[in-house]
Amino acid sequence: MQTNRVSFKQKLDAAVFEELQRYTKVAVIVDENTVTHCYPKIKQWLPEHTVIQIQSGEENKTIETCTKIWQALTDARFDRKSFVLNLGGGVIGDMGGFCASTYKRGIDFWQMPTTLLSQVDASVGGKLGVDFGKLKNHIGIFRVPDHVVICPDFLETLPQNELRSGYAEVIKHGLIANKEEWQDLSSKSLLEQDWEGVIQRSVAIKKNVVENDPTEKGLRKILNFGHTIGHAIESYLLDISGRKLLHGEAIAIGMICEAYLSVKKAGLPESELDSIQDYILKVYGKVELTDADIPHLQDYMLQDKKNEGEKINCSLLEATGDCGFDYVVSWDEAKESIAYYMSL
Amino acid sequence: MQTNRVSFKQKLDAAVFEELQRYTKVAVIVDENTVTHCYPKIKQWLPEHTVIQIQSGEENKTIETCTKIWQALTDARFDRKSFVLNLGGGVIGDMGGFCASTYKRGIDFWQMPTTLLSQVDASVGGKLGVDFGKLKNHIGIFRVPDHVVICPDFLETLPQNELRSGYAEVIKHGLIANKEEWQDLSSKSLLEQDWEGVIQRSVAIKKNVVENDPTEKGLRKILNFGHTIGHAIESYLLDISGRKLLHGEAIAIGMICEAYLSVKKAGLPESELDSIQDYILKVYGKVELTDADIPHLQDYMLQDKKNEGEKINCSLLEATGDCGFDYVVSWDEAKESIAYYMSL
Repeated sequence: MQTNRVSFKQKLDAAVFEELQRYTKVAVIVDENTVTHCYPKIKQWLPEHTVIQIQSGEENKTIETCTKIWQALTDARFDRKSFVLNLGGGVIGDMGGFCASTYKRGIDFWQMPTTLLSQVDASVGGKLGVDFGKLKNHIGIFRVPDHVVICPDFLETLPQNELRSGYAEVIKHGLIANKEEWQDLSSKSLLEQDWEGVIQRSVAIKKNVVENDPTEKGLRKILNFGHTIGHAIESYLLDISGRKLLHGEAIAIGMICEAYLSVKKAGLPESELDSIQDYILKVYGKVELTDADIPHLQDYMLQDKKNEGEKINCSLLEATGDCGFDYVVSWDEAKESIAYYMSL
Repeated sequence: MQTNRVSFKQKLDAAVFEELQRYTKVAVIVDENTVTHCYPKIKQWLPEHTVIQIQSGEENKTIETCTKIWQALTDARFDRKSFVLNLGGGVIGDMGGFCASTYKRGIDFWQMPTTLLSQVDASVGGKLGVDFGKLKNHIGIFRVPDHVVICPDFLETLPQNELRSGYAEVIKHGLIANKEEWQDLSSKSLLEQDWEGVIQRSVAIKKNVVENDPTEKGLRKILNFGHTIGHAIESYLLDISGRKLLHGEAIAIGMICEAYLSVKKAGLPESELDSIQDYILKVYGKVELTDADIPHLQDYMLQDKKNEGEKINCSLLEATGDCGFDYVVSWDEAKESIAYYMSL
């Protein structure tokens, strides 16, 4: 497997896009936000191109939207030497990357992530795909983009809740692999962070993990910390009116629950659980969950891609900055950790 | 890229399927033909499994059918350590393989091809996918199956027109890469062939080509001989009432047209064109095409995945048993070759 080619660009200019000249056709995939806030920043540097606009939002990350993208590429007679630039957050990156990778069995594509979440997470690692019914990323493949271009400039117009959502993955990267980074992050509030440095260090952590295990046979599983429970919460609340959470808001809850499980099963000192939960609650506040939610969460959790058979697989912290994987958690234990979060 | 693991089995028995025990769940994808004629031959050797039945026919090789397969796997709670066995012809192999390769970002699958066409062609090479509108194999990926099990036993119940269709790829393999094989084949009628030997030699030719170029950057393109024009004819006639052709029947026409172009552009001796067209017409007969069909064929041909921009890329014979690739053919030349076929 090819390793990720990731570039940090403080400034975008013609040179960044020069190599796009060699393609027969170029498409830029945008949504109604990035077409307004981000596309104007790159438009002038691009060769002649087709703009494919989709509706933003996780609920549109579906095979039906893929069909629209494939149709647009087909209508514009894109051939195998043509190219797709994904300009947007995780939805556009995952789905646009999946469409490019399956169009005529795969054409080249770049990720140009425009949210903090996609810059530190979705753009590195080659996980592509769409949701299926309520199941997140249920249909997809692994394929590394030809280039990931990260420019913090795009974050200027990002709403604060989106910044906070992306920050959950930043926190996670510190917790699973770099104690100093965690300590540095947790000594500052969200708005005090130096984003340029934070993003570069966070991407470096993820890249290092991914390159050691591109298809998630082992080590890469540590990136799932917080996600077994967090994903179930996110999927379950997705279409309950008034209760939808952003990805990182759900992962923040998942990290508290799984830090609790880490104390029970992986030797994380209780004092470290306390610091983790203190800081996460300070940044994200507390989300209301009720006993009536619990059976639904069980259903979602047992559908998780990470499970084998009926066992729930978790990545748990053995210490701050040190994560293990393939811990088997029973549903009763998972339920207990959710009860713990509810009691805080 | 992993090389193909292909086994020829004169007899199926428990040992062939023993390794399936290690999967958490097993699905067998069948259609209404293979569930009757082929599934009973293997059922007793399989571990507990789910049967997923789809409708046979190229017109069902769609994303919509994929959605049904993904749903069936989801409903049966298939996890990442589960498994799919594709029991059928090219449609089941291509589509079932695509579904398995994209379910939770990829689970293991075997191809167990049950037609001559899929045994000598679709099962080797890792091309997976579905049609999109009228465009054949427009959406898909490259991925090598974990195992291809070829058993000539399945051919016993195959209708003769299906056998003849598969035979076009057998002829093609001889023409592009093995002159003796071509001579041997063309000295016998369809029903005089020794299938066991024919299949083994034909698969060996394809495997050799594919392993030297798994993602179709160069050499592998020779496998497209006959397919640039043949595919266009197949796609165009697909849903014209009373004119639909089987894949190999269309490729047979494509091979005559492209052998004609081979004389014009690649140095194939005219006497070899004569033997090729004589034998192919003897086996397949002549298909009626009219002047009114020509503009439609142009449209289909310009959408071919093998093209770059508006140029038509062809693989052409430099001699019998020796094929070159990346010959650029104009639409006028392609049209002339179709007129040649019509004049025979």
